[in-house]
Amino acid sequence: MGMGHWGMCVIGFTLLLCAGGTSAQEQPRLNLMPLPANVQLGSGSLRVDSSFSVALTGHTEARLDRAVQRFFRQLSRQTALPFSAKASTKPTLIVHTDHASKEVQELGEDESYTLSVAADGAKIEAPTPLGAMHALQTFLQLVEVSPDGFAAPAATIQDKPRFPWRGLMIDVSRHFIPLDILKRNLDGLEAVKMNVFHWHLSEDQGFRAESKKFPKLHTLGSDGLYYTQDEIRELIAYARDRGIRVVPEFDMPGHSTAWFVGHPELASGPGPYEIERKWGIFDPAMDLTNEKTYKFLDELVAEMTKLFPDHYFHIGGDEVNGKQWDANPKIQEFKKSHKLATNEALQAYFSERVQKIVTKHGKAVVGWDEVFIPGVPKDIVIQSWRGQASLAQAAAQGYHGILSNGYYLDLGWPAARHYAVDPAGGQAANLTPEQQQLILGGESCMWSEYVNPENIDSRIWPRNAAIAERLWSPQSVTDVASMYARLHAVAAQLEWLGLTHRTYYPQMLRRIAGHGATPEQLTALRTLADVVEPVKEYTREATAPAPPTSATPLNRIVDAVPLESDVARRFGELVDKFASSSCCDADTAAQLRAQLSAWRDNDSRLQPLMQRSFLVKEVAATSQDLSALAAVGLAALDFEAKGGAAPDDWKTQQLAVIEQAKKPKAQLLLMPAPAIQRLVEAVAAGGSCGTTK
Amino acid sequence: MGMGHWGMCVIGFTLLLCAGGTSAQEQPRLNLMPLPANVQLGSGSLRVDSSFSVALTGHTEARLDRAVQRFFRQLSRQTALPFSAKASTKPTLIVHTDHASKEVQELGEDESYTLSVAADGAKIEAPTPLGAMHALQTFLQLVEVSPDGFAAPAATIQDKPRFPWRGLMIDVSRHFIPLDILKRNLDGLEAVKMNVFHWHLSEDQGFRAESKKFPKLHTLGSDGLYYTQDEIRELIAYARDRGIRVVPEFDMPGHSTAWFVGHPELASGPGPYEIERKWGIFDPAMDLTNEKTYKFLDELVAEMTKLFPDHYFHIGGDEVNGKQWDANPKIQEFKKSHKLATNEALQAYFSERVQKIVTKHGKAVVGWDEVFIPGVPKDIVIQSWRGQASLAQAAAQGYHGILSNGYYLDLGWPAARHYAVDPAGGQAANLTPEQQQLILGGESCMWSEYVNPENIDSRIWPRNAAIAERLWSPQSVTDVASMYARLHAVAAQLEWLGLTHRTYYPQMLRRIAGHGATPEQLTALRTLADVVEPVKEYTREATAPAPPTSATPLNRIVDAVPLESDVARRFGELVDKFASSSCCDADTAAQLRAQLSAWRDNDSRLQPLMQRSFLVKEVAATSQDLSALAAVGLAALDFEAKGGAAPDDWKTQQLAVIEQAKKPKAQLLLMPAPAIQRLVEAVAAGGSCGTTK
Repeated sequence: MGMGHWGMCVIGFTLLLCAGGTSAQEQPRLNLMPLPANVQLGSGSLRVDSSFSVALTGHTEARLDRAVQRFFRQLSRQTALPFSAKASTKPTLIVHTDHASKEVQELGEDESYTLSVAADGAKIEAPTPLGAMHALQTFLQLVEVSPDGFAAPAATIQDKPRFPWRGLMIDVSRHFIPLDILKRNLDGLEAVKMNVFHWHLSEDQGFRAESKKFPKLHTLGSDGLYYTQDEIRELIAYARDRGIRVVPEFDMPGHSTAWFVGHPELASGPGPYEIERKWGIFDPAMDLTNEKTYKFLDELVAEMTKLFPDHYFHIGGDEVNGKQWDANPKIQEFKKSHKLATNEALQAYFSERVQKIVTKHGKAVVGWDEVFIPGVPKDIVIQSWRGQASLAQAAAQGYHGILSNGYYLDLGWPAARHYAVDPAGGQAANLTPEQQQLILGGESCMWSEYVNPENIDSRIWPRNAAIAERLWSPQSVTDVASMYARLHAVAAQLEWLGLTHRTYYPQMLRRIAGHGATPEQLTALRTLADVVEPVKEYTREATAPAPPTSATPLNRIVDAVPLESDVARRFGELVDKFASSSCCDADTAAQLRAQLSAWRDNDSRLQPLMQRSFLVKEVAATSQDLSALAAVGLAALDFEAKGGAAPDDWKTQQLAVIEQAKKPKAQLLLMPAPAIQRLVEAVAAGGSCGTTK
Repeated sequence: MGMGHWGMCVIGFTLLLCAGGTSAQEQPRLNLMPLPANVQLGSGSLRVDSSFSVALTGHTEARLDRAVQRFFRQLSRQTALPFSAKASTKPTLIVHTDHASKEVQELGEDESYTLSVAADGAKIEAPTPLGAMHALQTFLQLVEVSPDGFAAPAATIQDKPRFPWRGLMIDVSRHFIPLDILKRNLDGLEAVKMNVFHWHLSEDQGFRAESKKFPKLHTLGSDGLYYTQDEIRELIAYARDRGIRVVPEFDMPGHSTAWFVGHPELASGPGPYEIERKWGIFDPAMDLTNEKTYKFLDELVAEMTKLFPDHYFHIGGDEVNGKQWDANPKIQEFKKSHKLATNEALQAYFSERVQKIVTKHGKAVVGWDEVFIPGVPKDIVIQSWRGQASLAQAAAQGYHGILSNGYYLDLGWPAARHYAVDPAGGQAANLTPEQQQLILGGESCMWSEYVNPENIDSRIWPRNAAIAERLWSPQSVTDVASMYARLHAVAAQLEWLGLTHRTYYPQMLRRIAGHGATPEQLTALRTLADVVEPVKEYTREATAPAPPTSATPLNRIVDAVPLESDVARRFGELVDKFASSSCCDADTAAQLRAQLSAWRDNDSRLQPLMQRSFLVKEVAATSQDLSALAAVGLAALDFEAKGGAAPDDWKTQQLAVIEQAKKPKAQLLLMPAPAIQRLVEAVAAGGSCGTTK
């Protein structure tokens, strides 16, 4: 539940102690995320109490009324104050909107706003409802508890996004994600000012959108887990209310096994087909040589482009292995007769035809890297998942692109690593300003092999907020410590939206421990779980105890722990402070010692659960490693306390223990290992630790 | 989130250590609550995996199908296993039901069942669906994580309730509680086998049921916060599906201000009336002398008895102060002409008339103590809130009764105190067996002055499960340590139903701390909050910083903390073990010292939040008291460690500190105070602490 552990150092607080009595009443930082383009702090603050009222002026519409109702609901959750809906003669907050936005939200609409907060009232001014809604979210983040009640600090904020396309993709095919969970994630997107929900609706493992034209697609291709067209319209309206576009993706010509269950005639192989249950890249692919395929797609695109009003329509295009094409003589013949030398060329032929279909129905195509072949028409958007280079190449040739490489939430990166990825960075940094303009923004991607309704929020949040900031805030906003501090605050605030990114965790641990586990046993489990992370990148499948499928329960510790360990990160910061600081060494050493002692003793505390629960037994080796690691850290502190450097053979022995602890076990990484290694190395070097006292 | 604190002693675990190496793999206790009438443990266990299947035999009905679906949903939450809904040729669990239960569930229907679990399968046998559904809940509680997967231990259980009326009352009038929250609480009732939901629908502060006959009742009497008749029917069906009767209460002739807003002609005073916003007993009461009152009630009861199918209809009757009657000459005249000497006699006249109306519409009356006047017709049920004596008196005179005195959840009692209250105890113990049969059971009561949608679950759960056990299990089931151990387990299990009795707490603390609070600051707040409880009984209003109303935000620490501190309770157990045990003193002393040190140091750790948050500032004195108390406890341990008794003047000084700490502040009680007093007294006496080493 994110309250951290006793004895953990929190940098801000410790620095205050170091400074020897600086008042804690200093100006609190603004916990805004994404950081606005421009903030000027004023003096004083605006009190937020039950009399708070809002007035809409200028352009008004029902959507703005609903946004204000939502604003009050959220403000009420944040403060527990009751607000009466009555109009006030002197509104606390005036929201002035110049004019309407487009009937169907478009890429690049004006989303800017200004927000001024003074002690006697606040004002929002925005050209369009999109900006006004963003400003309301900023105001909600400004409201904090204060010595005299709830208040928003006086400030003037001028804000607008850096990129016009700021999205989250959710793969609802590998694991189905019910509508209400998508909705609360859209609430989260609104809170961090993302404006695109990319709905990955079809895959080998499921076709999730109802088709009235081809009902076998969803009835045979989804195990009954699909969205009706009414539900889809409901979600689109829900998104529009929050300034969010919905871009549907129907992945083709690969990743399409689920289509073929009901429509084997579309495939390049003979069939029959079943819904795929495993993960990976599979052979089935559409038959690009059959005119019936294009007729089918024309009718499906006709239906779906009516259902989804957004101008963009995503056709996927990724990861076709070509095996079914190679095995089909008719397709080989077609390649020859059409002078298509490679399968890439064959797919390019397909992409061009599908693009024409989409264009015919009034939409523009988005596709993954693979659909970009130089020479394709320019009204296409390339979604770059394979690297920043391809995005830069496309832009250099005049194509629009969005970046997803570096924003894959399922790979388990820390927020800081996502945060460092800039759509205009890497090879794109060398583009001309005009070419850079072609980079529209980016999308984080939540692929769902290892997420389900129970843990998906935790795999998206809070890290997605760091990506949202990268896409909204000025390029110069890069301070990682500030990002983490504000991420911690926004994570707390997102809970009021009903997102379960923190509450799921103690509940899953209790399941793992058994409901008969004692509080002390649960604490021991939590202590270990708090410092491990799932293995990274694409290693989950290869290291699995049994080949994972869509029926594999996601109830192990690897499924329960957050993808980024806050405890380990803070411990690392504390070690670095200890190894480098000329201040507070004794206090820092005491904090390190307390943490390390708790870890050292934890393995024996966890024994009863290991003997009772197969899910805890699985982490026995990791638990031993943590105790061993902690003993190493304590020994290092002992050497340091004695004032001398540790002998070389000691260091060699300890590094061997650390290397052992670094090896993934039960698909888990023990995150404090690198910091303990740094501690050993600093002490062994007789380092700054000893010399600065 | 209930994970407790590092270093806290957990009795079961510590005893194992004391015994010097007893295997932790002993037979786990069964975490059943309420405890069944008879349990025989078998050997081995039944594996619960994805292939688990259920078959219904004998009498079947749609309600049983839904119960099985609900069973699988809950089993899936508990285990995260995916279950296919497919029928199996060899079902894991066979549910055999003899015959249907009544179309409208009746008091005293057969709720018994047997459940046998063996390694190769399980069987439920029950006369009616009510017993079958109870058995499914028992099975769910049996399923636990094991060394080899999820499993239910082999056992034969024969079970039936001790009392036929086992209810929970929720006051939805003082604070409105939305339907979905009532539903999840009904899920909780099903889990602990309670079978009555008493819906307290009208009060001075709100009339919450839609009346089509007299729409001004709900439109003018509820601020728009009421249940439509469709919603009421929906809840009744939801309850029936779970073996729960719904008894509506329309409180009269007092507690009825909200009725008079739309219908002042019903009142004894001139009006006009407004919805009451304050708490307490108010003057407005119905005019019992006006025939129009009875005509109105006849029509309302006609409407509401059609809406609510249960045989019982609750007419309230409590707490009329009589002031409006005394002030009304017409009513005084009526009393004289009808030879009604007192207001009690006047109310008896009213009760009799209303009872006739209810009887005319085919129902039986339930009323609070006050409606019991010797001589009233026998088909009435007295709900005893003023004491067990009145229940015994009524039974002695041949009247049915249910006990609520001792089961008021809002009074803040520990579970153990509720648990000790027996409907057949107190004066009822002296009744003849035939008279005791008239005692139908009991109801816990959740009065809602200080609960709202955010914290209501925590005010009901888990303590209500202890009351449920009292009403279901044999009278001999009274072991408090066992109750608390199982209560801890059932609390974990209730979370899977979506009850928020644990998740609300860290969220409310974060609001109190502000979303910018650091993890260390939150831990300090949690450390204090974990050991305080709200002031008890009816002292909340008198000690409030400002007169409370229904618009008072419930966002203070007193609103956030659980009503029973587990940490303080366990600390008290540890102190008693330390003061009396001949085993493990050193270990226990170390645990006490660690806990006391953390408390002693907590006040300084909480300072930054006190300076930032008005909601934390409020508990400054309590925080100082905790540190002072902890210092006293540490000093006592120091004396004990030195092996000598503490001097008398030291004891006197320490007791003064403790007395100061015992005084409520910010409406909070510091719960470790009595245990620390016991520690001081034991050490000062040179007590067993020192002599048994």
